[in-house]
Amino acid sequence: MERRKLHAQGPEFSRIIAGAWRWNLSEASVHHLIGTSLEQGITTFDHADIYGDHGNEAIFGNVLRGSSSLRGKMEIVTKCGIKFPSAHRPSSWVKHYDTSREHIVWSAENSLKTLSTDRIDLLLIHRPDPLLNPEEVAEAFTSLKRSGKVLYFGVSNFTPTQFEMLQSYLSFPLVTNQIEVSLTHHAPLFDGSLDILMKHRVAPMAWSPLGGGKLMESQSSVFAKASQYKATETQMALAWLLKHPSGMFPVIGTTKSERIVESAQAIHINLDKQDWFEMLKIVQGKEMP
Amino acid sequence: MERRKLHAQGPEFSRIIAGAWRWNLSEASVHHLIGTSLEQGITTFDHADIYGDHGNEAIFGNVLRGSSSLRGKMEIVTKCGIKFPSAHRPSSWVKHYDTSREHIVWSAENSLKTLSTDRIDLLLIHRPDPLLNPEEVAEAFTSLKRSGKVLYFGVSNFTPTQFEMLQSYLSFPLVTNQIEVSLTHHAPLFDGSLDILMKHRVAPMAWSPLGGGKLMESQSSVFAKASQYKATETQMALAWLLKHPSGMFPVIGTTKSERIVESAQAIHINLDKQDWFEMLKIVQGKEMP
Amino acid sequence: MERRKLHAQGPEFSRIIAGAWRWNLSEASVHHLIGTSLEQGITTFDHADIYGDHGNEAIFGNVLRGSSSLRGKMEIVTKCGIKFPSAHRPSSWVKHYDTSREHIVWSAENSLKTLSTDRIDLLLIHRPDPLLNPEEVAEAFTSLKRSGKVLYFGVSNFTPTQFEMLQSYLSFPLVTNQIEVSLTHHAPLFDGSLDILMKHRVAPMAWSPLGGGKLMESQSSVFAKASQYKATETQMALAWLLKHPSGMFPVIGTTKSERIVESAQAIHINLDKQDWFEMLKIVQGKEMP
Repeated sequence: MERRKLHAQGPEFSRIIAGAWRWNLSEASVHHLIGTSLEQGITTFDHADIYGDHGNEAIFGNVLRGSSSLRGKMEIVTKCGIKFPSAHRPSSWVKHYDTSREHIVWSAENSLKTLSTDRIDLLLIHRPDPLLNPEEVAEAFTSLKRSGKVLYFGVSNFTPTQFEMLQSYLSFPLVTNQIEVSLTHHAPLFDGSLDILMKHRVAPMAWSPLGGGKLMESQSSVFAKASQYKATETQMALAWLLKHPSGMFPVIGTTKSERIVESAQAIHINLDKQDWFEMLKIVQGKEMP
Repeated sequence: MERRKLHAQGPEFSRIIAGAWRWNLSEASVHHLIGTSLEQGITTFDHADIYGDHGNEAIFGNVLRGSSSLRGKMEIVTKCGIKFPSAHRPSSWVKHYDTSREHIVWSAENSLKTLSTDRIDLLLIHRPDPLLNPEEVAEAFTSLKRSGKVLYFGVSNFTPTQFEMLQSYLSFPLVTNQIEVSLTHHAPLFDGSLDILMKHRVAPMAWSPLGGGKLMESQSSVFAKASQYKATETQMALAWLLKHPSGMFPVIGTTKSERIVESAQAIHINLDKQDWFEMLKIVQGKEMP
Repeated sequence: MERRKLHAQGPEFSRIIAGAWRWNLSEASVHHLIGTSLEQGITTFDHADIYGDHGNEAIFGNVLRGSSSLRGKMEIVTKCGIKFPSAHRPSSWVKHYDTSREHIVWSAENSLKTLSTDRIDLLLIHRPDPLLNPEEVAEAFTSLKRSGKVLYFGVSNFTPTQFEMLQSYLSFPLVTNQIEVSLTHHAPLFDGSLDILMKHRVAPMAWSPLGGGKLMESQSSVFAKASQYKATETQMALAWLLKHPSGMFPVIGTTKSERIVESAQAIHINLDKQDWFEMLKIVQGKEMP
């Protein structure tokens, strides 16, 4: 598995990242998924405080606690800033965002506990908060960085102006923006989202890299060349993202070991430029101008 | 009343600003509105050369001439750059913009005369002019600054790229962009308009902060919590803007003394974060993603 | 004919540029069009590798080879990066872009041969390539610059973020962005496309400056003042662009000598500001806000 830095002053991650979004499973199942991922060279795991209604970090953490050698073999990403009504968060009565200094620090420290670890490799602001006070975020990040509790910081779902605004308040670089991008959701290739990251020499993380499987159902001709590459449709969809010069890190969301193995192999596919544009033409319904 | 600088190198204004847009009233009435504003700590008054078909500055100026102590207690904002057909401007036969060096200087000097003052605290380009020549604007601003006729400069209704383009030609900072923002017109919270100002450490002025009263008529549920805050709907709408981390200065447009008093009290309301998001959810018709 | 630099460190071009897009004509005809252009002071010629299905550069080059004094009297712009299925490019089976280092260098060298010249004054990336690797483009440009084969570099049809992204990888300035702009296609005056170039002190080149002639057919009232200026509709359309403070260089696309003469004279028309806004009002269908 290829490994690469998100930014010159950022962490080195496996190019394919395992997302724990849907890993509200038994500890045995999660242990098995972690093992399969590591065997494939997928060493980076993507969490959020809220995944599995605030439960997935704890399941993952219990696995780490029971198997002390695991933590040293992996990098952990988690997120903070979204609050929604839940039995586990009774104080929230409307979905909202909280990027106050207090909440970021509390959330990171809470993630450390639930994940049974002494450090988070990368902490992301989960969504652009219209009430985001950049000075408070900078204070929270700086405090967490100094204490060694969080090593690197980034954002998720930020627009270009939101990214540059927050960056302007920080004395160290945001090392990623985790955004939705796939053959189904290809707007970021044209709307500036990827340009701005390339301008800042920051690699994107790509969530929902298979587009929720919608393509497989409705536009399977996009994968017509799969057999020539001896690849599956999933591998073709990932290879299409991996070809982009921004150096995207796809975050796969599967709960099946065999799909992790399948996805990891996408790293070896180098799509021909014309095949890449043919796939884009099919999903856009028109050729390039 | 809270006072705050628009920019570290900018003027200090009252957080709520009195707009003279509709003050085409008798001198006695305007004198009364000024008095009420000052009593409430509202010391900043927002004009434009064209308000009241080029008449409001003169009415205000007549009040200042008749009451010599007033000028020292206030800050005056005015604008230039719009020309439209009017009996008072017979040379215009189509609505257009003029941001030539000559017109900016002439308009500022004309405002000084009509306002009966020796200085304008803040001069804004009223609208983004597609024929704006940034070198000419820079020359006009520099000349007016050196002569002490205008102390600070800004823009109004500019997009982020227009703001950064003009700023790049100036040796001193634009200290504001006066834009439309309200519960009715909430796009600026998401489209980069406020981000870019926060990036430049510049506070916005917010025109039509009540959204023209449309909300009060059609979506009054947005103010459901007003009684809990012991607040009126107007105060809730202003408090919603004041909560934004960009540090907006709402420009109220009323012609009634009692509404000035009412608006000024909004400064004391600190909306709970969840109430703020609930109001946003109602005006957007959906919760945050 | 006015001459002007595209950028302080860029080439000096004639303000009106002759486009060779449709010059798939006999060598005699092209020779005549070149002669007429030069007589009018139009010394800059705009090509692309693909114009005339990859044939127009060669026709132009044959004229230069047969008339050795011509090259020294002109500046040549050409473009690279688009590939499409053609009998002349049998390896392309889908329209796509190629901005790899190898292709840019190969294409520039191929243009030198077909144009029968030892230097290209300005080379443009024809379209924003979603697979554009800015480091490769920077290597290709640097190599071509060092060898003296290409003197200056720019882009075409780039968005503001694409322009700033690529610029950030170069040690010398992009000297233009050639974009579509006309009375018919006036969005660039408002969407940031021209602002960003003015911010970078870069002059745009304007392709299809007459909007494909659509206006002349459907909205001829936009040219109501033509007779007052003793101008033709074509001249009015060009004068409208020339008035813009970005300092646009219109690229005219005609194949008729008399139209070259007609267009060149547009340089002497200075539209009144109100006439300019009246024309904008007509094509927008509304006056400015």
